[in-house]
Amino acid sequence: MIFSHEYLHAVARDILAACGVLLPEAETVAEVLVSANLMGLDSHGVIRVPQYVRAIRKGSIVPGSPIVAIQETPTTALIDAGWNLGPVGAKRAMEVAIERARASSIASVVVRHCNHVGRLGAYPQVAAEQGFVALAMCSSLGDGHWIPPWGGREGRLATNPISFAAPTGSYPILVDMSTAVVSEGKLRVKHARGEPLPEGWILDAQGRSSTDTKDFYGPPMGVILPLGGKEGYKGYFLSFMVETLSRVLVGEKHPPGTPGAAGNGLWFMVLDVTAFMPLTQFRREMDDLVAHMKSSSLAASSSEVTVPGELDFRMAEKRRAQGIPLEERTWREIERLAQELEVRL
Amino acid sequence: MIFSHEYLHAVARDILAACGVLLPEAETVAEVLVSANLMGLDSHGVIRVPQYVRAIRKGSIVPGSPIVAIQETPTTALIDAGWNLGPVGAKRAMEVAIERARASSIASVVVRHCNHVGRLGAYPQVAAEQGFVALAMCSSLGDGHWIPPWGGREGRLATNPISFAAPTGSYPILVDMSTAVVSEGKLRVKHARGEPLPEGWILDAQGRSSTDTKDFYGPPMGVILPLGGKEGYKGYFLSFMVETLSRVLVGEKHPPGTPGAAGNGLWFMVLDVTAFMPLTQFRREMDDLVAHMKSSSLAASSSEVTVPGELDFRMAEKRRAQGIPLEERTWREIERLAQELEVRL
Repeated sequence: MIFSHEYLHAVARDILAACGVLLPEAETVAEVLVSANLMGLDSHGVIRVPQYVRAIRKGSIVPGSPIVAIQETPTTALIDAGWNLGPVGAKRAMEVAIERARASSIASVVVRHCNHVGRLGAYPQVAAEQGFVALAMCSSLGDGHWIPPWGGREGRLATNPISFAAPTGSYPILVDMSTAVVSEGKLRVKHARGEPLPEGWILDAQGRSSTDTKDFYGPPMGVILPLGGKEGYKGYFLSFMVETLSRVLVGEKHPPGTPGAAGNGLWFMVLDVTAFMPLTQFRREMDDLVAHMKSSSLAASSSEVTVPGELDFRMAEKRRAQGIPLEERTWREIERLAQELEVRL
Repeated sequence: MIFSHEYLHAVARDILAACGVLLPEAETVAEVLVSANLMGLDSHGVIRVPQYVRAIRKGSIVPGSPIVAIQETPTTALIDAGWNLGPVGAKRAMEVAIERARASSIASVVVRHCNHVGRLGAYPQVAAEQGFVALAMCSSLGDGHWIPPWGGREGRLATNPISFAAPTGSYPILVDMSTAVVSEGKLRVKHARGEPLPEGWILDAQGRSSTDTKDFYGPPMGVILPLGGKEGYKGYFLSFMVETLSRVLVGEKHPPGTPGAAGNGLWFMVLDVTAFMPLTQFRREMDDLVAHMKSSSLAASSSEVTVPGELDFRMAEKRRAQGIPLEERTWREIERLAQELEVRL
């Protein structure tokens, strides 16, 4: 089933609006979710609409809740997102960071009481589109702590992604990656298909390496390893850094399983490149860096060298033209929800 | 051969001073190098003294050259290290970043015309010891571009390390890691011993996976893969981010093999945690995070869970008490140099 991005945007927006979400907030959420579908990151796309609706009904998402800076300086802000929809809090926080970086060259903003933000890269991308360099880190407040510390076998950290964006002469450079070796979503697909895993993705509950998804899903549950294989201590170190900046510094203390456990802690940094060189020069030199990467001969069985974000933006262009494919099951769930809420599709 | 850290410090300092390095600058370099030996990172320790002396004689290191901010705002500085000794430029840059973060909550400093800085973690560590959180990234200006872009087989990036430090109730958290799967130094050791490499470390000159160090050293030379194994695109993405912040933003354009090619580009960010919470609370919550990691049961064949930097600080304590072992060859080279420069050992 193929849908235009405009149509999916309208559907997501109207369903959220029918649940009492203010129209501008519903637009923001729809934009962030559909941007993930456009880039091919469907696990962070409109498949999340039913999850957000359930959370609104349960009261763990509070639409319309004000996004407030509760502690600030000219270069920083601690923002309380009041458990509003995650993309609403995250988007506002990035706007604040950009405003402050514009005025003071650099800014850092953290966000607490924030629900699931969707595609993390969406926020640094906005900064890069305005000519800034941005770095974002994201923790999970309770759910999904599947990553053990290096040497351990019990989950202590989430997949703790890092996102980085920088302007070029065309599409921004966009890094958006988990510090774990793989997302739980990919394991779920392998599990559903009964496929074995590559070595080095999971440990079973006894802390032994395994290639069987059942050893992860248990019970008892296993863990997902940090990025890096035999050098996985490096992925763990990066994850620990993400936890420090986007959970500890945010002032969030939710242990796994508490209310608000599906939320995210956020740390944003935005830097004005014009503090160091003219933006046009920066863009040109980034283009040179991209060209330098692409000038490499190919490795065996490789067909192309790309730069961070390139495949995502290329996919978005394709899907903007040709439409976004959704699995029937996802669409049926959205349809049911629309019917229930009397939203015309 | 075992030496006290005080003795090695004095030797390094006196040899540099005999080459015309001002005493405070010689002290700084000796401190950074010996701190690496203390932590067990001997490849960045006093073994570098002969290299620095050669560079001084060649004129590519200019002792006493002023470290000057050539473009600045209250929160940023572009520092020209004038090809002085790398640790001198890097230490001064971190001092500037800390001063500005103290006044404005956050600061970012980049450094150009900077020689080899030694142990990158030394600089964020200073910030953390003063209660700040710090992030550092480091590029190489020309030499050592052994890392191909993902999908490529020609070196385009250096091992591009990331360092992160944060205060706790005791030792700082200290991440200091290459975004490549392994340093060239470790390959050199395997090569000298004729040992095979683990899968996934190198490609040969044709871009094929290999476990033979000869396929890296060539000729023709191969490449070292980015961190991540099958997920090595993530290590490449991180390396690209490091290159953007610590080379492009610095305004360095040295292609491999040009003069100054042994230098480093630097990007520092320092953040004042008190913009978000009292420092005592931050330290306590970092201690809780450390304890949370250590509460995990152990994986198979693991004897301990540690946090970033813990093993380094523990090694430093041990070597501070018991002395620093040096390979005879390294010591003989230092001895010869001392004799030549009429430095009493």
